[in-house]
Amino acid sequence: MKIRIYNARILTMQQDMPLFLGELQVEDGKITYVGEEKKASGDSWDREIDAEGNLLMPGFKNAHTHSAMTFLRSYADDLPLQEWLYNQVFPMEAKLTEEDVYWAAMLANLEYLTSGITANFDMYMKNESNAKASADMGFRTVLCGSINDFGGTVEEIEEEYLHFNKYNPLISYQLGFHAEYTTKRQILEDMAALGKKYKAPVYTHNSETENEVAGCIERYGTTPTAFLNSLGMFDYGGGGFHCVHMTQEDLDICKEKGIWVVTNPSSNVKLASGIAPIQKMLSMGIGLAIGTDGPASNNCLDMFREMFLVTALQKVSLSDAAAVDAMEVLHMATAGGARAMGLVDCDVLAEGKCADMVLLDLQKPNMQPLNNITKNIVYSGSKQNVKMTMIDGKILYEDGVFHVGTAPEEIYAKVNESITRMKSE
Amino acid sequence: MKIRIYNARILTMQQDMPLFLGELQVEDGKITYVGEEKKASGDSWDREIDAEGNLLMPGFKNAHTHSAMTFLRSYADDLPLQEWLYNQVFPMEAKLTEEDVYWAAMLANLEYLTSGITANFDMYMKNESNAKASADMGFRTVLCGSINDFGGTVEEIEEEYLHFNKYNPLISYQLGFHAEYTTKRQILEDMAALGKKYKAPVYTHNSETENEVAGCIERYGTTPTAFLNSLGMFDYGGGGFHCVHMTQEDLDICKEKGIWVVTNPSSNVKLASGIAPIQKMLSMGIGLAIGTDGPASNNCLDMFREMFLVTALQKVSLSDAAAVDAMEVLHMATAGGARAMGLVDCDVLAEGKCADMVLLDLQKPNMQPLNNITKNIVYSGSKQNVKMTMIDGKILYEDGVFHVGTAPEEIYAKVNESITRMKSE
Repeated sequence: MKIRIYNARILTMQQDMPLFLGELQVEDGKITYVGEEKKASGDSWDREIDAEGNLLMPGFKNAHTHSAMTFLRSYADDLPLQEWLYNQVFPMEAKLTEEDVYWAAMLANLEYLTSGITANFDMYMKNESNAKASADMGFRTVLCGSINDFGGTVEEIEEEYLHFNKYNPLISYQLGFHAEYTTKRQILEDMAALGKKYKAPVYTHNSETENEVAGCIERYGTTPTAFLNSLGMFDYGGGGFHCVHMTQEDLDICKEKGIWVVTNPSSNVKLASGIAPIQKMLSMGIGLAIGTDGPASNNCLDMFREMFLVTALQKVSLSDAAAVDAMEVLHMATAGGARAMGLVDCDVLAEGKCADMVLLDLQKPNMQPLNNITKNIVYSGSKQNVKMTMIDGKILYEDGVFHVGTAPEEIYAKVNESITRMKSE
Repeated sequence: MKIRIYNARILTMQQDMPLFLGELQVEDGKITYVGEEKKASGDSWDREIDAEGNLLMPGFKNAHTHSAMTFLRSYADDLPLQEWLYNQVFPMEAKLTEEDVYWAAMLANLEYLTSGITANFDMYMKNESNAKASADMGFRTVLCGSINDFGGTVEEIEEEYLHFNKYNPLISYQLGFHAEYTTKRQILEDMAALGKKYKAPVYTHNSETENEVAGCIERYGTTPTAFLNSLGMFDYGGGGFHCVHMTQEDLDICKEKGIWVVTNPSSNVKLASGIAPIQKMLSMGIGLAIGTDGPASNNCLDMFREMFLVTALQKVSLSDAAAVDAMEVLHMATAGGARAMGLVDCDVLAEGKCADMVLLDLQKPNMQPLNNITKNIVYSGSKQNVKMTMIDGKILYEDGVFHVGTAPEEIYAKVNESITRMKSE
């Protein structure tokens, strides 16, 4: 499949490279050219797309989510956190089948496409179904281990690591566990050893709530970041999802060990967890990425909402309207996310990189006038601006139509059937 | 123009009326029927629309904005507030012509339509052009007086009040001034007298920032709300835009005098102003509405973003995930907004009410599954879900296409010309 996109404003997200008008060429899933327009190429293209001056940029990376939780979207909101989790979420999750997860993950993938998201970093159960959903649709998914006291063994995590990293070019897998507060010390030590065995990064939920941090201090006399680090968990890097309540020592550890922080601002405000110190992390040079968290808590899978909140919440919490520039946010949502997830070839638009990108429609009222296109995207962008989403050189979403092999109506019907059945069980 | 919309899920926003499947009929700008489907009507319709199970509800009301500031969208963000306002905004506003405002207001109106907003409460300069823009497009606008020490006289406000309330059925006008901190005492006293003369409510920016409140206390020994109330400003009601920093006494005054609070959460976080105590206001029974504020500060005109933030910011600031139920937010965004602006016939879907409504597409991934449609809208909705926006019985936006008499491309071009000219002046 050879595609040429011309007459495009292009934001490569390569460092210090300004937006320019030009063209981009794709062949067999890779970017083969980005630059000024080539007038007479002589090549035979499967498609030549006139971008009409719209903006081509790397796809957004959803660096922390629980995709299949779509089945619980809006099932139980406006409840205290513990009641929501223990009385509403856990009992329903116990009823999930492999097929439920397959369709629920597909539903999430559809929504990612509508928001220009070209890859997700997914921590959930029944990974075989999740991987199959993405592979069947052509979506790029990095699975994350989720072992904890209630499910999984370290041997299974190792099997998954070996299995899913050879499963399909669109699927990869990173070592991970649910969280310090849900996972006993022996498992944590074994996970740290596994990370060292494969010289691999390890990922986990970290310091999402004050309670969680207080609990760890009670158990181990120190914060989750410091405790896990003391086990050698991050000797080959890794990442923390949420990282809302972090001490200076925690941040120093992140910086020293190259631990990525994946922030989830919508979820953190909706679940009343707090506001992560993003501005401080940025100033320290800690690697940052953005996630939507799962649709049961957020409830939508929308990188535009997250991008606005990443900066707006810093501004209000620091009483500084100048905090976190829009360009920093765009970097976190694209190149930062890709690198956090281990997708080092999906970070920017450049020759040889994966053809994972999005075309944003600037001819919508919210993108006008064109005073500053990057600020327009971060502060005013919406799903409505996503004109085309391409993954691995294939256009999976264009002008509101999905090209994923399965009709959206069938996916909607299946997920509604799942939740209806679970409610009656 | 007679339109019948059938096979619709209908949320009338009438108190305690649950969502139901039925039809709605419109004739000459008014709703003539809402209820169960009428199988054989025998009537001749200009259009019969199969809503395909999508959701029909009252249009959103943008109860505080400065529409024509679209020309400054993304012109100068990520700056400290004073630098932004004094060095960037004011110098550019000084160059605005009537024609600039006409096109910039049209651009805002286009964006409102894409977000299901059917009326705006607009405080800005050059009201003649603003009114003409809305009237020409078929958009419903309530203008708000904006007198202050830098522009306008109380006589002009009175003239505007009389003029614009007879201008066009789509246009109305409410008495207002910019803010206590920009308006000297004599003008404030004269405005209070004008309110009494016409037994009319008076609207103003109120307690947006801590500085503003501190300044008023220094000048008059009390808060803006208490000071203005002591002048008799709210003897016939009125409203305050923002109301972020309110004392218990301020809230008591709002309750006693029927002063509407119009909250602007995106603007308040982005400009680092703070988080308004919405949960407390709700519990006291104070009337609440939602506004986007102007596009120079927000930067987008999107009621979905505002609705999510209204509740999410309460949840995080009160550490209570149960704060402000989604249905309360929907009420604020529709019926509350309409009543706050004086559009008492645009509040709910009922026989005899104005035909101002929106059809939301539930067949998008972010609205699935259908566990709870109202929570889906507030927590997961986006501009992408706006399938149709109707004002005064006319469809102005449908399936991404505008029907407003002027091509969007012309409006975009004019606004880009304006800002380009101003930058070079």
